[in-house]
Amino acid sequence: MKNLLVIQSGGPTAVINSSLAGVIKGGFERSDKTGKVFGGLFGIEGVEQEKIVSLEKFKEDGLLDLLKQTPSSYLGSCRKKLPDPQEDKAFFENIFGILKKYDIGYFFCIGGNDSMDTVNKMSRYAKEVGSDVVVVGVPKTIDNDLNLTDHTPGFGSAAKFILNSMRQLKKDTEVYQVPSVVILEAMGRNAGWLAASAALANDSTMNACDVVCLPEVAFDVDAFLGKVDNVAKKQGSVMVCVSEGIRDKDGKYIMENEGILKRKNDKFGHAALGGVGQTLRDMVARNLGLKARSIELSTLQRCWSSGASLCDVTEAYGAGRMAVEYACQGLGGVVPGFKRLSDEPYKMEIVPYDVTEIANVEKKIPSSMISSDGFGVTEEFIKYAKPLACGEPELKYRDGQIQFAPKVW
Amino acid sequence: MKNLLVIQSGGPTAVINSSLAGVIKGGFERSDKTGKVFGGLFGIEGVEQEKIVSLEKFKEDGLLDLLKQTPSSYLGSCRKKLPDPQEDKAFFENIFGILKKYDIGYFFCIGGNDSMDTVNKMSRYAKEVGSDVVVVGVPKTIDNDLNLTDHTPGFGSAAKFILNSMRQLKKDTEVYQVPSVVILEAMGRNAGWLAASAALANDSTMNACDVVCLPEVAFDVDAFLGKVDNVAKKQGSVMVCVSEGIRDKDGKYIMENEGILKRKNDKFGHAALGGVGQTLRDMVARNLGLKARSIELSTLQRCWSSGASLCDVTEAYGAGRMAVEYACQGLGGVVPGFKRLSDEPYKMEIVPYDVTEIANVEKKIPSSMISSDGFGVTEEFIKYAKPLACGEPELKYRDGQIQFAPKVW
Repeated sequence: MKNLLVIQSGGPTAVINSSLAGVIKGGFERSDKTGKVFGGLFGIEGVEQEKIVSLEKFKEDGLLDLLKQTPSSYLGSCRKKLPDPQEDKAFFENIFGILKKYDIGYFFCIGGNDSMDTVNKMSRYAKEVGSDVVVVGVPKTIDNDLNLTDHTPGFGSAAKFILNSMRQLKKDTEVYQVPSVVILEAMGRNAGWLAASAALANDSTMNACDVVCLPEVAFDVDAFLGKVDNVAKKQGSVMVCVSEGIRDKDGKYIMENEGILKRKNDKFGHAALGGVGQTLRDMVARNLGLKARSIELSTLQRCWSSGASLCDVTEAYGAGRMAVEYACQGLGGVVPGFKRLSDEPYKMEIVPYDVTEIANVEKKIPSSMISSDGFGVTEEFIKYAKPLACGEPELKYRDGQIQFAPKVW
Repeated sequence: MKNLLVIQSGGPTAVINSSLAGVIKGGFERSDKTGKVFGGLFGIEGVEQEKIVSLEKFKEDGLLDLLKQTPSSYLGSCRKKLPDPQEDKAFFENIFGILKKYDIGYFFCIGGNDSMDTVNKMSRYAKEVGSDVVVVGVPKTIDNDLNLTDHTPGFGSAAKFILNSMRQLKKDTEVYQVPSVVILEAMGRNAGWLAASAALANDSTMNACDVVCLPEVAFDVDAFLGKVDNVAKKQGSVMVCVSEGIRDKDGKYIMENEGILKRKNDKFGHAALGGVGQTLRDMVARNLGLKARSIELSTLQRCWSSGASLCDVTEAYGAGRMAVEYACQGLGGVVPGFKRLSDEPYKMEIVPYDVTEIANVEKKIPSSMISSDGFGVTEEFIKYAKPLACGEPELKYRDGQIQFAPKVW
């Protein structure tokens, strides 16, 4: 009877704690195989520092429900890139020594692209040294850029925040008789899933998203201005959603061209972005003479659990539980992912994917989901993305405040 | 049997259409006194241009409920400042001519500070020329700066969006072990009610708001940096909410000092603001060496009906209905306002205030509601503001999209 240890890693999402709740619940349910449920604080760094806490208190009524509506990593996170197990054995010896001390047999890491690299290396090391620790990943990322899986927990809720921002901002912008352009800046470095999801704001009664600018399409200033101008002439106000990571045909970030922001890269070598919405706003105002406003959703889009998608919450929870199932079956080095069975009605099943095929690969929007002019999405994208934003969870509030799980340590 | 005409004016709020729904419903209910219900598009400008539409279709089941959850002015808005009735009779002769054409006996304007000026002038002119048109205002403004009334519809929902942004951003910011400062920029030119409402984010389990910067308090850079530094040393992450309108002891906007933004004033002579969050972020990063991020909620805070306060929605609707009551009683030149009877349990009644005492007066936060160091609020503010953000309306969604009332014209 081995214990279970779960960590969270990478950037927050609205449902990363739903997956945590799933792992905890899974641990409680499989008490035939598992002992105590522990959490490591601040990702793998916390394990290194032996910041390990009991999560047994979540057996109390209602606490897991509160955890499911708590955004961001309840256990804390880190952005540490693990060394190669071949090159730095000492790092892994230390980690696995701590796992042994707590009698851990099942290790879970809930995270995105970079965190799957952690799962991969931990799993490889375990195999190499013949450890009986089973390492399983649980996918999360608002960016939806994980390989193999149909989609990733966290995306649906972020997409929903963006689409409902577009809808409500459209109402806000059409109140005056003066035509105006609203430019919403969404996250997404290399994959434009989030910016594209703004197109889910449209329905038969209103155009709440007229233009999307995606990193998958080389950004051309003249084409963009022409598109905005056309829409403005036709209907007055123009709603734009731009991905933070758009680049020109030479692969240069648009902001770099404009010389507005030059920030340092992060530990994984990703450029720090943000501010492209302002660049586009100035472009529109200067060249088209239209009233323009840019809004950067910033971190709100990844922590807005008060507007989460029920589909997303349910699936994130399901992936967490299934991860425990896999671990109990001795299936290490895998990640529960989603395989779509049908769009309408939406049906999917959770299947184990090999983490080596997920780690360090970024899934971009296929060209079949992007409209021919590059400033919109096709029906295929809508069919794909719509079900992921559906459903509203019942949330607990007190005095107008969304309620969160209290610290149990 | 005279008809009823309603317009909306000034900036949007999440519940301005709840008040519109109240006026429409009031009109339907008082069919003993009133004829048809008309709406004027784009505020008083639309009336001038005879853009007048029938709102009778709202008798259909469910449409008024959809209207209540539609943010921003359903009928459109304008920011026109009316001339003085003494100086420009022609303007009013034209407007009252159009009212006569539609056989309007009851005229309603839903709006904020500047719109109450419109109500005041329309009402004065009606009296001067002996017109039988009864003019009644319906208050709205996220800024909560209207005189006499305890509070203003629109404030509670904007306050709720801000407080839940602070709560969710706090969760987002505390995931890493690195101390960081989050600076949320809220609207509010001269009155800091919205920035202060960030303090409603706190509860016994978490500090989600550590510092507020209000226009009521002269901003001192050293005192601010000292405060942030203290909190950072004590607890790591620091949550700040700053009002767009903060000024130094000489009354100069902080951004002007920093020279970041100099924009033109609007038609009412108000300076166009925004960007102070970035200024404070740079201040903190440069002087304290802390990781800092600024987030400008921008127009989202005034149109976020998907997170509205039930108290606010209900009261906005009630004010609209009461306005019709007053009009039917021949009470012109008044505005239904709120008189608080008790904080706990929260009780208030709607009473008629004289529009001349409301128009063009800005209500600021009294010093008894501001903490002695100027960077927080007192218990008196919490008691005052808390009930206004309470309760969650049941909202209609389809495919993850918040639903709005369709155009009925």
